[in-house]
Amino acid sequence: MRKRTTFVICAFLSLSVFGGDLQLPAPRKTGGMPLREALAARQSARAFSDQFLDNQLLSDLLWAACGINRDGGKRTAPSARNSQEIDLYVALPTGLYLYDAAANRLIQKMTADIREKTGVQPFTQKAPVNLIYVADYDRLRGEKEFYSATDTGFISQNVYLFCASEGLNTVVLGWVEKEDLHKAMKLTPSQHVILTQPVGFPPK
Amino acid sequence: MRKRTTFVICAFLSLSVFGGDLQLPAPRKTGGMPLREALAARQSARAFSDQFLDNQLLSDLLWAACGINRDGGKRTAPSARNSQEIDLYVALPTGLYLYDAAANRLIQKMTADIREKTGVQPFTQKAPVNLIYVADYDRLRGEKEFYSATDTGFISQNVYLFCASEGLNTVVLGWVEKEDLHKAMKLTPSQHVILTQPVGFPPK
Repeated sequence: MRKRTTFVICAFLSLSVFGGDLQLPAPRKTGGMPLREALAARQSARAFSDQFLDNQLLSDLLWAACGINRDGGKRTAPSARNSQEIDLYVALPTGLYLYDAAANRLIQKMTADIREKTGVQPFTQKAPVNLIYVADYDRLRGEKEFYSATDTGFISQNVYLFCASEGLNTVVLGWVEKEDLHKAMKLTPSQHVILTQPVGFPPK
Repeated sequence: MRKRTTFVICAFLSLSVFGGDLQLPAPRKTGGMPLREALAARQSARAFSDQFLDNQLLSDLLWAACGINRDGGKRTAPSARNSQEIDLYVALPTGLYLYDAAANRLIQKMTADIREKTGVQPFTQKAPVNLIYVADYDRLRGEKEFYSATDTGFISQNVYLFCASEGLNTVVLGWVEKEDLHKAMKLTPSQHVILTQPVGFPPK
């Protein structure tokens, strides 16, 4: 009986703690294309294969975007007064996730596939990974709209260069129905969608 | 007499066309630190040696920031609807320059050293190179302040990664007296200072 109780508790804990979350492998912090070559290859590309990124490549991508790269929880991209107000949401076919950089984990926020809401143009639905940059204005002082925009730019450029290095396609999008997306993501009033950025392999 | 006249005309043309402009060597588009290592090394650093960057490194830096990397005059950093509204000004001890990406040239706009105006903190004056991101709102449609900010973020992150790759220090600055700087640079009403970014070697 004790064994069975323990099993039930463990099963419950496992479900509640890990739910549909996705623990990512450690990101690779060495290698990649030489920087100047990545800069030479950087471009916007709007066509995607539906081939999925494996968990290692997904982990590498998210770390490149705004992962922790040194002591004090500091990131690969700067933010105004280190406010780290930009959260990286990831829309996948299996649902919507929030990137937890410290735990290297994707926290599932919903199971719905909301990729079609991440942009007005149909290619966003085809891309297997849709990054959504969301600012939490409560973490910012001063010019909130301005710094949310600059700080998203820093992260997005990391994604561009990572994609150039890995042979992935990507394009940053401002043409987004932001209010609809905010509602679909069930964000709070202090959260604001800034830009989105689909990522995937080129079409075959 | 004819020879002398020709000489005077040539000297005048040389002065007016090339004045204090600086023709840069072609930027190097291969090599550099592997991208993931540059991402791992990216940080903000506010201390600078006054050692100058040689013309090759300066050319490489400016090309990395927002140089032309492919056909159609497209750049290493994206911009909203390819408006390319961000101009890269460069404050050096010898004056203020505008980066002409197509000609790979620094066009001298004034001979005054205005580095002390590029930030409120004294380290900006010490840095040998001060980048000033200036948006021309006339080239933008829609949300001009927002897109000027995102588009500056893309460029600035290229500078961060280039500096990480080359062992240079840099920090992006929003704490700038923008109206004073606008006046010192003699900008037009449609031009707006967005951010500044000093660059230099670490102190010895």
